[in-house]
Amino acid sequence: MTMAHIPRQILDELRDVLDQTDPRQGELFVQLLLAAKRIFVCGQGRSGLMMKAFAMRLMHLGFTAFVVGETTVPSIQGGDLLVVGSSSGETATSVCIAGLAKKAGATVIALTGHPDSTLARLAHAVVVLPVRNIDATHSHTRSNSQPLGSLAEQSLLIYLDAIVVRLMTETAQTAEAMRARHANLE
Amino acid sequence: MTMAHIPRQILDELRDVLDQTDPRQGELFVQLLLAAKRIFVCGQGRSGLMMKAFAMRLMHLGFTAFVVGETTVPSIQGGDLLVVGSSSGETATSVCIAGLAKKAGATVIALTGHPDSTLARLAHAVVVLPVRNIDATHSHTRSNSQPLGSLAEQSLLIYLDAIVVRLMTETAQTAEAMRARHANLE
Amino acid sequence: MTMAHIPRQILDELRDVLDQTDPRQGELFVQLLLAAKRIFVCGQGRSGLMMKAFAMRLMHLGFTAFVVGETTVPSIQGGDLLVVGSSSGETATSVCIAGLAKKAGATVIALTGHPDSTLARLAHAVVVLPVRNIDATHSHTRSNSQPLGSLAEQSLLIYLDAIVVRLMTETAQTAEAMRARHANLE
Amino acid sequence: MTMAHIPRQILDELRDVLDQTDPRQGELFVQLLLAAKRIFVCGQGRSGLMMKAFAMRLMHLGFTAFVVGETTVPSIQGGDLLVVGSSSGETATSVCIAGLAKKAGATVIALTGHPDSTLARLAHAVVVLPVRNIDATHSHTRSNSQPLGSLAEQSLLIYLDAIVVRLMTETAQTAEAMRARHANLE
Repeated sequence: MTMAHIPRQILDELRDVLDQTDPRQGELFVQLLLAAKRIFVCGQGRSGLMMKAFAMRLMHLGFTAFVVGETTVPSIQGGDLLVVGSSSGETATSVCIAGLAKKAGATVIALTGHPDSTLARLAHAVVVLPVRNIDATHSHTRSNSQPLGSLAEQSLLIYLDAIVVRLMTETAQTAEAMRARHANLE
Repeated sequence: MTMAHIPRQILDELRDVLDQTDPRQGELFVQLLLAAKRIFVCGQGRSGLMMKAFAMRLMHLGFTAFVVGETTVPSIQGGDLLVVGSSSGETATSVCIAGLAKKAGATVIALTGHPDSTLARLAHAVVVLPVRNIDATHSHTRSNSQPLGSLAEQSLLIYLDAIVVRLMTETAQTAEAMRARHANLE
Repeated sequence: MTMAHIPRQILDELRDVLDQTDPRQGELFVQLLLAAKRIFVCGQGRSGLMMKAFAMRLMHLGFTAFVVGETTVPSIQGGDLLVVGSSSGETATSVCIAGLAKKAGATVIALTGHPDSTLARLAHAVVVLPVRNIDATHSHTRSNSQPLGSLAEQSLLIYLDAIVVRLMTETAQTAEAMRARHANLE
Repeated sequence: MTMAHIPRQILDELRDVLDQTDPRQGELFVQLLLAAKRIFVCGQGRSGLMMKAFAMRLMHLGFTAFVVGETTVPSIQGGDLLVVGSSSGETATSVCIAGLAKKAGATVIALTGHPDSTLARLAHAVVVLPVRNIDATHSHTRSNSQPLGSLAEQSLLIYLDAIVVRLMTETAQTAEAMRARHANLE
């Protein structure tokens, strides 16, 4: 396949995944975000990068948001929300951090491809992004055109950015207000 | 709009952008990646996160890849390739780093929405991702359904992951070989 | 030299550097930190790591602190303080960021070994850490027992941690209050 | 205390800690570093920043070094060395990563204040940095002039930089060769 065709195929596969998400899980996610005192996000590898992209937009929307592992992250407490992204739901450090957050009294929501995973069972709420056979570590077959977890990570980004669009409406934010909060030292 | 409709609209807008990319620019990009001694990637904000996601896959493919600004990045030299992602093409530190890389004798390729930007004019090669009116800093109108540079950043991720699919073919890599290189400490 | 002697020699050289700092510059630094609405820190390479260590303690002390380049950093504004660490005072991206911060109306303080550097002349206030002949990029002689900028980076850490001790007194913080703010997700 | 006196007191306390380290543990550490195929470093919080500073110097010395959690880190294997810094030796994610590395067949060395900690017992080799009563999470008394783990983190930096001086001799590296490897994109 050439560069004229590959992006279209990826978008078709993304549509398949996103069409199968449950809108009610998305609405619960939005409510948990709106209710949270502060929002902490967490993920490893490329999933972690997509979670960071989400955290940045949460800040632009006026939420108090932190990325677990960055320098000036305070302690998590009751009333705070931890959002964890892990396609397999078995990533060791993410499961570990979700457990610590729950112990500290925070609410935990997991975005995962595996609703029966350790992470999903540990979380208070789950958003299932149903990408089959793509887990980087555990699976040995491929049913989509991309290697490793690429389809899962792309689904995570698009899904979270759809949540951002919903949050803009819910919080009546304008793009201008968001732009004013955008980092100006880069 | 609800969570049942927003992801579909985002994917439609992504298709519009990716359909307008020039496949010849993509093929030149692939050739530069294959020819490079080592590959350095660079970007700020959410574009920077997408560039990191690309660097991780380059490593999985067996390339020697570095993210500018991370801890153990060596000095760039002649024969090396710097890949810079900046939708506006005016991000100050990215322009600054592209200039330093060029001075050190490296090849510079820019992925940008603005082929007439400072970055694009400074680069040896350009891939244009034609996202209109979405630049986070410079624009004041919106022609897509998302705030700030979200559409540009999503386009960047999908486009770079399409390049990864092309590179898999070119280097005859299997998903299994890539999985074996995947970080196992996370 | 063996591991029984090297640490002692390093500490002797550190004492030489720190003894030559001007306590009045330190007291001005403390006043600027106490007066700032929010504190942004910035640095590259190992100096940047020492600046991050400082930002973390500022958060523990109850200050609102950000590391430039991390995910959820908001825009800098008038009333904010940018603290830049650069031994040479010529690091391109740090000089660039200091210029952007000044343009945005923020106060800039530089910690540097070179009071006549581009960064020092650009900053509103300067703390001189007088480490001679150690600059990683510009110098070609060594007058201390360590390679590259190690002595400068160690001086930066110890100096900033001395500022932390001063700030504890000034803000009447206890170690217990600081511990309660410490990240609990790691 | 004023800025004229605090740095001296910190240096005195650092000397106390470093004088009590066991030079034989340092020599074993040097041998493990020289024997390793590749070196991975790991740590959380400020200890993690000091480990990163060490990884950067390892790269300057010509070692193949990675920071666990950064973007282009490959999988760890037999023949590789994981260096973990944790003053308490109980930091959950560091213990978790040390376990994964051991399972993957890598050698694990721990730098810690607590030789009887979970991390120390899990590691193949241990360097004890005997900082008493300073653990950020577990201790409730202070026997030094600084809050939280500052003395431990400073000890870690100075100790690791002493190891760097030893490695320069062992590998017959010059400062000039190290400077040539220094990042030139910053």
